[in-house]
Amino acid sequence: MRLAEIAVALSGRLEGPDREVARLAAPDQAQPGDLVAIREARWLAPALEARAAVVVDEATVLPEGTSAVRVASVAAVWPRLLDLFAWEDDWGKGVHPTAWVEPGAEIAPTASVGAFACVRRGAVVGPGAVVGPYAYVGEDCRVEAGAVLEPRVTLHRGTVVGPRCRVMAGAVIGAAGFGFQDGQRLMHTGRVVLEEGVEVGPQAVIERSVVGEARVGAHTKIGGAVYVGHNARIGRGVVIVSQTGLGGSVTLEDGVILAGQVGVADHVTVGAGARVGAKGGVTKNVPPGETWGGVPARPLREYWRRLALLDRLEELLKRLKEGQRDG
Amino acid sequence: MRLAEIAVALSGRLEGPDREVARLAAPDQAQPGDLVAIREARWLAPALEARAAVVVDEATVLPEGTSAVRVASVAAVWPRLLDLFAWEDDWGKGVHPTAWVEPGAEIAPTASVGAFACVRRGAVVGPGAVVGPYAYVGEDCRVEAGAVLEPRVTLHRGTVVGPRCRVMAGAVIGAAGFGFQDGQRLMHTGRVVLEEGVEVGPQAVIERSVVGEARVGAHTKIGGAVYVGHNARIGRGVVIVSQTGLGGSVTLEDGVILAGQVGVADHVTVGAGARVGAKGGVTKNVPPGETWGGVPARPLREYWRRLALLDRLEELLKRLKEGQRDG
Amino acid sequence: MRLAEIAVALSGRLEGPDREVARLAAPDQAQPGDLVAIREARWLAPALEARAAVVVDEATVLPEGTSAVRVASVAAVWPRLLDLFAWEDDWGKGVHPTAWVEPGAEIAPTASVGAFACVRRGAVVGPGAVVGPYAYVGEDCRVEAGAVLEPRVTLHRGTVVGPRCRVMAGAVIGAAGFGFQDGQRLMHTGRVVLEEGVEVGPQAVIERSVVGEARVGAHTKIGGAVYVGHNARIGRGVVIVSQTGLGGSVTLEDGVILAGQVGVADHVTVGAGARVGAKGGVTKNVPPGETWGGVPARPLREYWRRLALLDRLEELLKRLKEGQRDG
Repeated sequence: MRLAEIAVALSGRLEGPDREVARLAAPDQAQPGDLVAIREARWLAPALEARAAVVVDEATVLPEGTSAVRVASVAAVWPRLLDLFAWEDDWGKGVHPTAWVEPGAEIAPTASVGAFACVRRGAVVGPGAVVGPYAYVGEDCRVEAGAVLEPRVTLHRGTVVGPRCRVMAGAVIGAAGFGFQDGQRLMHTGRVVLEEGVEVGPQAVIERSVVGEARVGAHTKIGGAVYVGHNARIGRGVVIVSQTGLGGSVTLEDGVILAGQVGVADHVTVGAGARVGAKGGVTKNVPPGETWGGVPARPLREYWRRLALLDRLEELLKRLKEGQRDG
Repeated sequence: MRLAEIAVALSGRLEGPDREVARLAAPDQAQPGDLVAIREARWLAPALEARAAVVVDEATVLPEGTSAVRVASVAAVWPRLLDLFAWEDDWGKGVHPTAWVEPGAEIAPTASVGAFACVRRGAVVGPGAVVGPYAYVGEDCRVEAGAVLEPRVTLHRGTVVGPRCRVMAGAVIGAAGFGFQDGQRLMHTGRVVLEEGVEVGPQAVIERSVVGEARVGAHTKIGGAVYVGHNARIGRGVVIVSQTGLGGSVTLEDGVILAGQVGVADHVTVGAGARVGAKGGVTKNVPPGETWGGVPARPLREYWRRLALLDRLEELLKRLKEGQRDG
Repeated sequence: MRLAEIAVALSGRLEGPDREVARLAAPDQAQPGDLVAIREARWLAPALEARAAVVVDEATVLPEGTSAVRVASVAAVWPRLLDLFAWEDDWGKGVHPTAWVEPGAEIAPTASVGAFACVRRGAVVGPGAVVGPYAYVGEDCRVEAGAVLEPRVTLHRGTVVGPRCRVMAGAVIGAAGFGFQDGQRLMHTGRVVLEEGVEVGPQAVIERSVVGEARVGAHTKIGGAVYVGHNARIGRGVVIVSQTGLGGSVTLEDGVILAGQVGVADHVTVGAGARVGAKGGVTKNVPPGETWGGVPARPLREYWRRLALLDRLEELLKRLKEGQRDG
């Protein structure tokens, strides 16, 4: 791609000599012929040193002769710039000759089913949907229009993957939950429903319900290796960062954000728009809109106040002791 | 199913008009024609509002005309009620045409081997056992009578899965452990043995031993995404909740319960019947029967006492300071 | 194998009657005919009681007639002894008849591709490399000489697995990262490069970069179920124990050691040779060579000092109060 084209695509303007750029590069890895987007001022020097072309804000001062695309805001054009250099894995087109589509499964003509994928009877794969290599679509599942299953996704029977969802490599959806009574496994009669535009990260697990639907609301983003226990109710626009775990019967209302490695205890509700900091252990309901942290989790202000108090504790105790001696 | 039949199956009695019920539903998702088991009093109103039939205890007061099954205890019939509406994934019957069974593997006539499964030479799959889609049964493994391997289970060479075990999607059993000496990987010469009735959750990993057998005792339940390091000794009837990790050479005696996201350090023994609360970090041996929590873990009473002390700390320090001023 | 042969292989000497040994056993599992290496003095009694042969240090006193191999140091010969009894899974030789090698992929004549593996166009599998069963090698990937992919490894497009790397079962390399702007997924235009001799544990995930290469330095060992967020820079000889997670844009310099279940926040750098204790939560840069622990992580001395202070806190407060009363 030439810088002049990139300038047009970003609604910016070319400065210095036009040239071909092969790759979009990270500033610390740039080589001659690369393009580097200067999102932080400290990245400019290494990029220029590597003789890379740059994308810069209006305010950035450049040495004469630098090949650059100037834009109003590098941050604002960032997604568009990435799109110019984007690639996606090719999971295959049409139904791969090694795939197994069981009689009674329904594959839309514009859908694709990758190498060694398996689609069972009663399952429906919608228009433009992609069932990646090794993906397993159990009986009566629905993979709706434009949804993508990356390699090795497992959909237990009856799972619904809504339109334009993306389920990443190795994720397991609809597994029976960890529920026992008197040492016997309780049957899990429910299923998992992902609403429109949900993303599920690699290796994540979403258990199905003992009874009814474990729903994940539209546009919710579930990170990699997240574990969602049975009977979950997850709202719309929720964000769950990687390695976080939800116990059983947890409710996350709309817009909740859980950072990484958080744990939420059984039967807890996290209110709409609430946030929990990384590694927090949530043992009771979090009111809507609040930000909590720590183990057991509490409002972040309290958590920080306690950390600050502990930081000063040795000094405080020493002073109290001196006060006694002096008094 | 008709309510009258359900009443018989639960040894209860039909009250109000008999009717057909299509689904067992969660109270917050109930629709007309559904059945809802009222295990908590607060669930009755939404179930009735949805015009669902209900399963209730003797004491529950119902509006006239409600279709209901009355039982002595909803909690007690719960597993049986679930069984009435239960389903299991169908992993296939017989040996699937896409499966690869290597010459020298032995598959019982009543066993099944699913789509794209692979059973290597020297492996034995017992009567009624199920090797699910994509499951890999390495050389010389034994999958004993009635055991179930869900999709994508990987059994490294020599692994034994005992009778009626269930290994869930994506679990890896018998991987070489994380052991190095002078930067070189130590060879892991051992194997993993799951005794009768063990359950292993989705994505869990059980490493094999450097030497000898890493055993998991009968009826132990290992949750999803649990990580068991090499040389483990896990007793009978142990419960390990999801995302917990065991270091190397850890011993869990019979009946131990580890909650979610717990970590146990290398070479630690957790005594028979001991419990560790969620997110606990166990750095030393836990005596039998005790309940521990926190990081580093300590007896739960101490852990709670400390939390309570910290909750009052600011106030305590303030009072001491005031005492000095006043004194 | 006979003890006399083992003695030669370990540069030790045979003591007592020579005999055949079938297995190398753990001391608590030894049976007659087994061999037990006595690495801790307390292991001798159970080994002898089981009438196992033993490998012992010069100083160990043995009952007359014990079959033993004496060596200068059991610890020093340990790796060699394991090598004598080592086995590896057989992932297959040559290209398995069920594998799918897309036209345009290049497989070295000495490489092997296992059952149901898939190698896409543009991918290169080097001499002696092993693509295990169900492994997926995406377009334009490179699996270099002697590298091993265990079953179910997923390499997203363009991933480079360096010479003699080992990627264990179920690991996912090159997945798109968890990056969103205004609710839209950012395209991830980069790729992952594993340098020579890297090991990646079962179920681990390494996300690719938004831009450029997420590199893992030579001989680094990444444990099972580790999660590496996008844009990582991981140095040489780093060790990351299982279940640890790195946020986005994390730098681990050469020789860093992260214990299990650690979390590292976005944009943090851990300096060369630094260490973080198990379950630590790293929220800011760790200087080279330091050892940190706790949440939020701090220098280990400070962390321990604080733990000790808290252990004495109740007593300290009580004494201060008594001091006031008495004063």
